[in-house]
Amino acid sequence: MTDRTPAIDERRLWSDLMALAEITDAARPWTRRSFTPLFDQGRDWLRRRFAEAGLAVRLDAAANLFGRLEGSEPGRPVVMLGSHSDSVPSGGRFDGPAGVIAALEVARALRESGRTLRHPVEVVDCLAEEPSDFGLSCIGSRAMAGLLAPEMLDYRGPGGERLGDAIDRVGGDTARLATARRSDVAAFLELHIEQGVVLERSRTDIGIVTGIVGIVRLELVFLGEAAHAGTMPMAMRRDAGVAAARLVGFVSERAQALAQLGRGYVVATTGVIEVAPNAINVVPQRGRVVVDVRAEDAALLDAFVAEIEAEARCIAEATATVVERCATLSRATPAACDPRLRTLLAEGAAARGLSSLSLPSGAGHDAAFLSRIAPAAMVFVPCREGRSHTPEEWAEPAAIAAGAATMLEAVLRFDAGAAAG
Amino acid sequence: MTDRTPAIDERRLWSDLMALAEITDAARPWTRRSFTPLFDQGRDWLRRRFAEAGLAVRLDAAANLFGRLEGSEPGRPVVMLGSHSDSVPSGGRFDGPAGVIAALEVARALRESGRTLRHPVEVVDCLAEEPSDFGLSCIGSRAMAGLLAPEMLDYRGPGGERLGDAIDRVGGDTARLATARRSDVAAFLELHIEQGVVLERSRTDIGIVTGIVGIVRLELVFLGEAAHAGTMPMAMRRDAGVAAARLVGFVSERAQALAQLGRGYVVATTGVIEVAPNAINVVPQRGRVVVDVRAEDAALLDAFVAEIEAEARCIAEATATVVERCATLSRATPAACDPRLRTLLAEGAAARGLSSLSLPSGAGHDAAFLSRIAPAAMVFVPCREGRSHTPEEWAEPAAIAAGAATMLEAVLRFDAGAAAG
Repeated sequence: MTDRTPAIDERRLWSDLMALAEITDAARPWTRRSFTPLFDQGRDWLRRRFAEAGLAVRLDAAANLFGRLEGSEPGRPVVMLGSHSDSVPSGGRFDGPAGVIAALEVARALRESGRTLRHPVEVVDCLAEEPSDFGLSCIGSRAMAGLLAPEMLDYRGPGGERLGDAIDRVGGDTARLATARRSDVAAFLELHIEQGVVLERSRTDIGIVTGIVGIVRLELVFLGEAAHAGTMPMAMRRDAGVAAARLVGFVSERAQALAQLGRGYVVATTGVIEVAPNAINVVPQRGRVVVDVRAEDAALLDAFVAEIEAEARCIAEATATVVERCATLSRATPAACDPRLRTLLAEGAAARGLSSLSLPSGAGHDAAFLSRIAPAAMVFVPCREGRSHTPEEWAEPAAIAAGAATMLEAVLRFDAGAAAG
Repeated sequence: MTDRTPAIDERRLWSDLMALAEITDAARPWTRRSFTPLFDQGRDWLRRRFAEAGLAVRLDAAANLFGRLEGSEPGRPVVMLGSHSDSVPSGGRFDGPAGVIAALEVARALRESGRTLRHPVEVVDCLAEEPSDFGLSCIGSRAMAGLLAPEMLDYRGPGGERLGDAIDRVGGDTARLATARRSDVAAFLELHIEQGVVLERSRTDIGIVTGIVGIVRLELVFLGEAAHAGTMPMAMRRDAGVAAARLVGFVSERAQALAQLGRGYVVATTGVIEVAPNAINVVPQRGRVVVDVRAEDAALLDAFVAEIEAEARCIAEATATVVERCATLSRATPAACDPRLRTLLAEGAAARGLSSLSLPSGAGHDAAFLSRIAPAAMVFVPCREGRSHTPEEWAEPAAIAAGAATMLEAVLRFDAGAAAG
């Protein structure tokens, strides 16, 4: 091998991505659920490709799959690149796999260039990033962050199987789960399709993620009084549908205002709106909404959620209804991306003549857990119409190659910077 | 028979009402749907009771059941009293039957008093007031008003039966339907449970109905864009759920304002609120609402409906959604009650020492159709918690007797007034 400038091979990257995609449930493409025989098949294919690329393959105790390229300076912490190979049911070919294959391509490009970095490089396929049949997501990256709690191993999946047993079944060793926790990671980079329309609509090549939002999901149920739509005068009504509707309006208006504050990305969605009995001629007795609130800024997120809860109580008073239920269904804290890595990614994109912009990630990712134990950052590439978690999910070969090249440039800069430092 | 003051027999009235109620689908009391064998059983029972009371029993061509007491002056138009004996599924024992049995009791009291009115009195059980399995309500009273259009006879019911055939099956003669149309009615009075809480909460004995509201039902569907709840920025959203919620808020607030204008009773209800896909993490693509608008004032009703349609378009523009559907599902015009009959009812209540108040009917009734061909008015009696169309529907024996006594007094006054006139 000669020492050449490492270069991303767009065709090879694409061909690998499509080959991995073909390992799918034929009845509902593109499906490769974690812990299934198809998932194992995908992993077998990845192991072979890792090995063919000259990477040392191993599984950790949490069944994360790694391909490692040693660095020139023993003892240096790892530059880790990757994402996940599992999918949602009837999902796409890109959410997850694009990040794993792009990472593989970066490692391959480095090795083929003959240049050895000071840092070891690890390509990772994190176990079960998507919500699994065990009711848990980001299983592998949780474990690397030391956040896969022992009680989670007792979650039950299909046929009553323990999650711990399922992890062992796909090659883990949960008796030694603590060994999966990492303290030797210098940097983590993850490429992912945007799953939104910002890059596509602004015709930008690369998105550099500022942070991964925290997410709070709030279920609110208003209880009023069912009544005849004709005979109950307006002034005597206790209309739970009106109460729910008012809250929906508040959440939307307030989120729009908060999004303009300059305190980072904020969105809030009332995706679930239900009234009962939901009959034309009956004043609704119950109104149920589930609000999904996301923000980069942890304090703002908490304050917004508190505001929604307070507004619900005000609305209940104004509509003579009661808040029958106000429950936090889930809560994930925001994860900021590392400023230095973001700068290196921006420089990397510019070096390749690629346009870039900074944007938040409104969705959760393995990088959120890795950010707990290492500087972490993400590269977003445009995807068609923002569609994701659907068979129509699509990203152009050139877009993914551009993302991989940006990551490669950042890795080279990081390694050089660390060497200089 | 001696010529005594006619008197309502509360025990007999109640006993008849409970006896009729027992003719029910035992599996789901209190159910006596029009056109069923149970309905025929109820009618057989009514015929016997009409005959025992000395009334001449007949069915008209629309299968309305009458019991007639002749007056002393041949050629005088009829004072008609009654309601309907059919029920909704799992309905109550009062909505409908209370008005038929109270009318029977009034006729019985008149006959037993030995006093003969100048006007003939007819007790009527109108056919199929409740929405029938043929998709039509107030079938009998429509026919009396000449508003049972020939095409309605072709509506199909269970097993594909024609409505016309079903009417003939229960004793009608639709080949001679025009003969059911009445032009000989001097006054129509209907007693009904309030189906609301105004009388109960104000502890008033008698409600004198000012008018029966017009009802417009409007279906509105907003179409937006489904999007990831995390990755779609607020400013780029086309949230059909927010659009629907805003309309719900508008309808409620505007109805409250209009109800205070002094232009009669106004209510509006959004009983149906649905979003799709109704998923926690997806911005709603579709939002569907059905609005039920009711008002006594026809012009106000039309103006309010037009305002709702206009507001929907404004909301669509503001939320970057479109109004995919804006359809009038049904439209019934308001029916005013006759001022002279209302005065006679108020005087009648006062004569019996009963408190009364004027109130609108927010629900539809046979009286609305009869008001097209004759002066018509209604007596409301209190019912427990306003509950109706449910097995728990309840009115006190004394309350119904008070309503019947009020109606009796009004009939006596009407007959005397007409004689004097």
